[in-house]
Amino acid sequence: MIRIALIGFGTVGRGFAKALAENREIIEKKIGKFRISAICDSKSSITGDFTIEEALRYKLEKGRLPESIGVEEIIEQGAFDVIVETTPTDVFSGEPGLGYIKKVLLSGRDVITSNKGPLVVAYHELIKLAEKHNARIGFEATVGGAMPVIKMIRDGLAGNRVKRIRGILNGTTNYILSRMEKEKAPYPQILSEAQELGIAEADPSYDVDGIDAGAKLVILANSVFGKDVRFEDVSIRGITRITPEAFEIAVEKGYTIRLIAEADENGKLEVSPRLVKLTNPLAIYGTLNAVLIETDLAGEVFVIGRGAGEKETASALISDLVDFYGNGSFD
Amino acid sequence: MIRIALIGFGTVGRGFAKALAENREIIEKKIGKFRISAICDSKSSITGDFTIEEALRYKLEKGRLPESIGVEEIIEQGAFDVIVETTPTDVFSGEPGLGYIKKVLLSGRDVITSNKGPLVVAYHELIKLAEKHNARIGFEATVGGAMPVIKMIRDGLAGNRVKRIRGILNGTTNYILSRMEKEKAPYPQILSEAQELGIAEADPSYDVDGIDAGAKLVILANSVFGKDVRFEDVSIRGITRITPEAFEIAVEKGYTIRLIAEADENGKLEVSPRLVKLTNPLAIYGTLNAVLIETDLAGEVFVIGRGAGEKETASALISDLVDFYGNGSFD
Repeated sequence: MIRIALIGFGTVGRGFAKALAENREIIEKKIGKFRISAICDSKSSITGDFTIEEALRYKLEKGRLPESIGVEEIIEQGAFDVIVETTPTDVFSGEPGLGYIKKVLLSGRDVITSNKGPLVVAYHELIKLAEKHNARIGFEATVGGAMPVIKMIRDGLAGNRVKRIRGILNGTTNYILSRMEKEKAPYPQILSEAQELGIAEADPSYDVDGIDAGAKLVILANSVFGKDVRFEDVSIRGITRITPEAFEIAVEKGYTIRLIAEADENGKLEVSPRLVKLTNPLAIYGTLNAVLIETDLAGEVFVIGRGAGEKETASALISDLVDFYGNGSFD
Repeated sequence: MIRIALIGFGTVGRGFAKALAENREIIEKKIGKFRISAICDSKSSITGDFTIEEALRYKLEKGRLPESIGVEEIIEQGAFDVIVETTPTDVFSGEPGLGYIKKVLLSGRDVITSNKGPLVVAYHELIKLAEKHNARIGFEATVGGAMPVIKMIRDGLAGNRVKRIRGILNGTTNYILSRMEKEKAPYPQILSEAQELGIAEADPSYDVDGIDAGAKLVILANSVFGKDVRFEDVSIRGITRITPEAFEIAVEKGYTIRLIAEADENGKLEVSPRLVKLTNPLAIYGTLNAVLIETDLAGEVFVIGRGAGEKETASALISDLVDFYGNGSFD
């Protein structure tokens, strides 16, 4: 019986819990029996005997969970095999997730996270800490949402030298740029419509200034290319100054504009709006993400998928769970 | 030290050996030291102390290998941990690969194969045989070439219910259809040009009649959907009767024609030329392959990559090697 403690019970945490409940049969075929042994958000918790459905219902009805045990205490009690950490991202401090993750790895237990912050701030420290304490850290959910790009590179392309990764790693900006292209409308107008639809945040800077894409790029550079880079090392330009006129000229010449994140084996690390040929597979529309991986043996491998969403992130978190505890076969 | 015996030393086998030699450092980081302990083709062999480079040079210069030990004997001697089987495909009998693979699995040793035949004829028998004898069988190289589609579904999308897989699984037919679309030329003309370029075989029926795509679809249906289907269960129509006029009408309406292979959770199993919107990501050009995977959590994940080639197949074979003997981390 694998015991999962869930830290963070917002959209991502609840989406993960729901997916575990709904696809329990599929997942148990691969990892055997599991249960959520504790759930904890910033102000409440649930431990002991409870079902996933009960916890979800309680939170929905009361806006909180029944107990008040803090995250630190849950970690200290150690009644779990793996922590799934889904607290909010802070790419500059990594906190609060970073402190939690270190504590769990130090205790020799596994961590799976959807939180970019800790990996952007301390990738190599966390990998070393995990190794030292015979624990593991899974972070598929930090990059590319439902596209299993980390595992695809690490496992599916395992024998390859990866030369370059280029992609669209932020769905919000891709949505805005797609609409600017199609509707010839100015940035502020499309942004405010995206905000009304819930696709952009009230404070959109995290997305539109390229911070989110830059954070994901740091994680890719550190893991895939074995670099030791931080957020400050990324050259970042966002999309706020792109005009309808720029789109008009681009489209006339057979191009569009997309926010492209690029990292390569020589240390290039850049997020910027770029001209992309309309026939290029990277010219995708809406909130999709896409990644083009250039390798020596496999050539170019290209993936498109949903970059965000509660089910999509759950898919990535569960893939780490199966990576850790699965038997590596189809059933 | 992992000992690899290589059965089949044609284009695929030699490509695998070359890739092992060239990317030895990358691969040994993941699986530790390895060596090829025996190589065997239909009429010659090399065993004992030899380097990969020596074997490749000998074969190039003499058209054969120095010894004459048969495959059966190599398997009986058992001086290997894993067999990499790259003999020619026969999707109807599965032989000669099927017999070799069974023998190896029976001896409790692992098998990695690029040969569709054995898996099309006896997928579940081989999986059960492997389980029973505590051995493994890897077959990433049988579907999609350099696209790691098997591992992507099995591992990257592990928590998902897969609803449907649709794709272009044969590069030769996609090349012919791409050129028919662009050049408005008749099928026989493009076929003969493809044959001159080495993209189509002298006897092209394996590709153009949809047999190759159908074989890959059987492997996907058996593995991903857990079905028990055989080649006869696939409804197959090839591309030989598609006319320039059909393309003209399609393109006028915003479509193209592609050979689409489709399998779903309800048992659909079909290879046929279909209308594909020109804006659909499946409207790919040249010898590329593409697969669209529909799931419950991740939504649609789409991959494009090179479907064939010696390096590309080597990439897939090596990914199985790392799957079996790797540590599951980036280094």
